[in-house]
Amino acid sequence: MLRYGHRSARDFRVTSHCALVARAFGAEQIIICGAQDNDLAKSIEKVTKNWGGTFKTSFSESWQKEIKKYKESGFFAVHLTMFGLPVNKAMPKIRKQKKVLIIIGSQKVERNVYEHADANVSITLQPHSEISALAVFLDRFFDGNFMTKKFPQSKIHLKPQLKGKGVLSNTD
Amino acid sequence: MLRYGHRSARDFRVTSHCALVARAFGAEQIIICGAQDNDLAKSIEKVTKNWGGTFKTSFSESWQKEIKKYKESGFFAVHLTMFGLPVNKAMPKIRKQKKVLIIIGSQKVERNVYEHADANVSITLQPHSEISALAVFLDRFFDGNFMTKKFPQSKIHLKPQLKGKGVLSNTD
Repeated sequence: MLRYGHRSARDFRVTSHCALVARAFGAEQIIICGAQDNDLAKSIEKVTKNWGGTFKTSFSESWQKEIKKYKESGFFAVHLTMFGLPVNKAMPKIRKQKKVLIIIGSQKVERNVYEHADANVSITLQPHSEISALAVFLDRFFDGNFMTKKFPQSKIHLKPQLKGKGVLSNTD
Repeated sequence: MLRYGHRSARDFRVTSHCALVARAFGAEQIIICGAQDNDLAKSIEKVTKNWGGTFKTSFSESWQKEIKKYKESGFFAVHLTMFGLPVNKAMPKIRKQKKVLIIIGSQKVERNVYEHADANVSITLQPHSEISALAVFLDRFFDGNFMTKKFPQSKIHLKPQLKGKGVLSNTD
């Protein structure tokens, strides 16, 4: 999953949310194109350390280079944008791909991204958020399996409750 | 839909995303509990003016007061939190309700919210984002009808495209 246009301080929270969504909904890694942001990387790694799984975070100076590299190694590049094809129409073709690179932007999207992507895909045809677009896309792509997804080697996990908070450590 | 814990400058983007998600995925209004933020209200109203529909934004000083008011007028209060019941299990009961108040928090959640809610509901049992939780909840609640939802009196609408941007005004 590729996030382009990260500026350290200003985008910290939104990019963090993107990374956590990617992890929780089943993506393997996030590549952040923009400012190298060690605080952000540490924050995401801390979540993975506590909550399990093998989610990876890395940075790149060039989204063009990354998209080219992934496409050359067989990835199908899906750019999430409100200008794209409706997700329901686009999904059958995307599901047939073995390897998918999801691209989400920030507020300013360079025109070229639309051309580099194999498919531009829209969630709602309305303005909302790259965070929600990513979540709904991954939910559809993995057919809602996020509730049963396992995150190996988690230190903590939750005991779902109608009211209150139930947190268990893995030694409970 | 109720968002609690808004601080003007710091939360502008995240609360904006929450509001736009609420609108795009079919909620009727957002009540923001926390700082009165006229810039935020204007920004959301501008989207509704251009993109149509009747989405409303308002502010309140007290989430307790709002929840009490809505519950007393027959609303079922659903708090989205990773500590809650899995969305798939909780949804059948929620779907039977005529009026639903969705509550989403910010980084610090007061313990009382868990008690005031009729149901605490979790999307993924993992940490991610209130923005994604809201989107996935509304997607499930409305059974994915966001792609066909109409926003009356929009000034612009999109022409979905595999590549490039297609924007039409309503006079085209």
